[in-house]
Amino acid sequence: MSYIDEVKSLKEQIKQFRNKKFDLTLSGFDNIVISGMGGSGIVGGIVRDLYDKKPVIVINDYNIPEFVNERTLFFAVSYSGNTEETISSTQKAIEKGAKVLAITTGGKLGEIVKEKIEIPKGLQPRAALGYMTMPILNTLSTIKEEEIDEAYSLLNELDENNEWTKEIAEEIFRGKKIPVIYGVPPYFSVSYRWKTQFNENAKVLAYSSNFSELNHNDTMPLKQTYKKKQFYFICLHDGLNERIEKRIQITQEITKTKFRMIDAKGSTPFVREFYLIHVGDWVSYYLGSLRNKDPEDVRLIELLKKKLEE
Amino acid sequence: MSYIDEVKSLKEQIKQFRNKKFDLTLSGFDNIVISGMGGSGIVGGIVRDLYDKKPVIVINDYNIPEFVNERTLFFAVSYSGNTEETISSTQKAIEKGAKVLAITTGGKLGEIVKEKIEIPKGLQPRAALGYMTMPILNTLSTIKEEEIDEAYSLLNELDENNEWTKEIAEEIFRGKKIPVIYGVPPYFSVSYRWKTQFNENAKVLAYSSNFSELNHNDTMPLKQTYKKKQFYFICLHDGLNERIEKRIQITQEITKTKFRMIDAKGSTPFVREFYLIHVGDWVSYYLGSLRNKDPEDVRLIELLKKKLEE
Repeated sequence: MSYIDEVKSLKEQIKQFRNKKFDLTLSGFDNIVISGMGGSGIVGGIVRDLYDKKPVIVINDYNIPEFVNERTLFFAVSYSGNTEETISSTQKAIEKGAKVLAITTGGKLGEIVKEKIEIPKGLQPRAALGYMTMPILNTLSTIKEEEIDEAYSLLNELDENNEWTKEIAEEIFRGKKIPVIYGVPPYFSVSYRWKTQFNENAKVLAYSSNFSELNHNDTMPLKQTYKKKQFYFICLHDGLNERIEKRIQITQEITKTKFRMIDAKGSTPFVREFYLIHVGDWVSYYLGSLRNKDPEDVRLIELLKKKLEE
Repeated sequence: MSYIDEVKSLKEQIKQFRNKKFDLTLSGFDNIVISGMGGSGIVGGIVRDLYDKKPVIVINDYNIPEFVNERTLFFAVSYSGNTEETISSTQKAIEKGAKVLAITTGGKLGEIVKEKIEIPKGLQPRAALGYMTMPILNTLSTIKEEEIDEAYSLLNELDENNEWTKEIAEEIFRGKKIPVIYGVPPYFSVSYRWKTQFNENAKVLAYSSNFSELNHNDTMPLKQTYKKKQFYFICLHDGLNERIEKRIQITQEITKTKFRMIDAKGSTPFVREFYLIHVGDWVSYYLGSLRNKDPEDVRLIELLKKKLEE
């Protein structure tokens, strides 16, 4: 499958996995821990954005917190199944008696975890987001059939009509800018997903932060001229939170900065989260394409892994 | 007090508040929630770095997760006591029956929360880190007397001999660079603290990420020449984790990037966390000074707050 087809497959992944879940009752657990790195690690953040009936702790590390015990529901997410940090954290969670579930194509993780959902091979991990996220969301909560349908329809629309995302990429490309993405609640992890997509798809440095936290620090230098023209400021836009709306307007006004707004679409947080993510998938894809970068070229990360094994 | 004296007071704050705590038993609580923004919000991250016997959830928002209930220990941290996000989240936590404790100089938060620790007025919030952090750490855990003494001594040494931090600031200043700070486990929040200090003290944009997560995304563009010279890469350095050590070396080697290493000092995570934080306090202070920026000038943030009330 070409990478562009992988990008376009997100809607199908969500539909295909709409009922995929682990069979368990949540009452036996006090907290949820989700361990993963990079393109698989973002899954934890997305789940935390969308599920808050129990504490969700996201781990991007070799280690696990001391509180993990038999009342912890531990999801290990690694597309390849060979991510050393995730294998390490998962082994520790098993030793501590946590209920450990894995989402992977196989690898070593597939060997050490008994209860797992196996997902299709052959994709870039970051393009397998639907496969990796749906089983956790379905296990923890209920995504309604109408939400799946609406997400499918909106993502499909974006896959068919995304010239406007290419225009954003062209602005970044022409100005040779560094993208900075400002997110909004409750989609805290989406801005970071955009950052990582710019890194991997387009091979450009990029940074992210979220409202309203950024008003307490990032806002200060924004008015300054120091290096500001080097950056391209993107603002995810929900439109449903009156105070955040006001903050976005005032921030632009007093810092004399124009954000490129990305409007959320969809009638529930689930749909809006995936819609906002997918806009970033397209913008970063086009930026990579303009820069003649192969989005599937992650040789540097592979080289690093190889050298780590030496 | 001058701002430089505020910076130097961190060691005294830690010593002065070494036994300051809320009087309660932790057995009644399943999770810890810490709410705060900006200079007060970083307190939650620091506590989460240093305490992991129960899940610690950090909130930088108006809202709270649904799981918050009477088995939640909720710390509200706002130096001024008038941070609207923190007041909002705290009111919601009170309504849900959480055990709510405040750390503040007063303000509206001081009025709505009965159980509170009042801290000295007259500092920049971000310079009151010792006052804000110690009561929570002491309530959740035990910081030994030797750790306090060692922290005092190392911070004092840094306050007396910090020409080398000025040299880092000079390099950033001369090259007109954007600082990027790479952190290491278990000091996940320290790189972000550096970022915010660069923003507020020096009025420069700055960004942060952490090992080993950054190896899964940030590493890709690092080898590219695209905009790379615009940045100054700082790497916090623990030296105690063999895999992370190797990652730092390999990342520099394969991306042909030289990090400015900042070595941790101290014999416990508590001491090392505060030492690494304080190096950033000094570097950002000097950068602001070289740029002729008043570290106490946060008029833009004040203007934003005023306009939000209109």
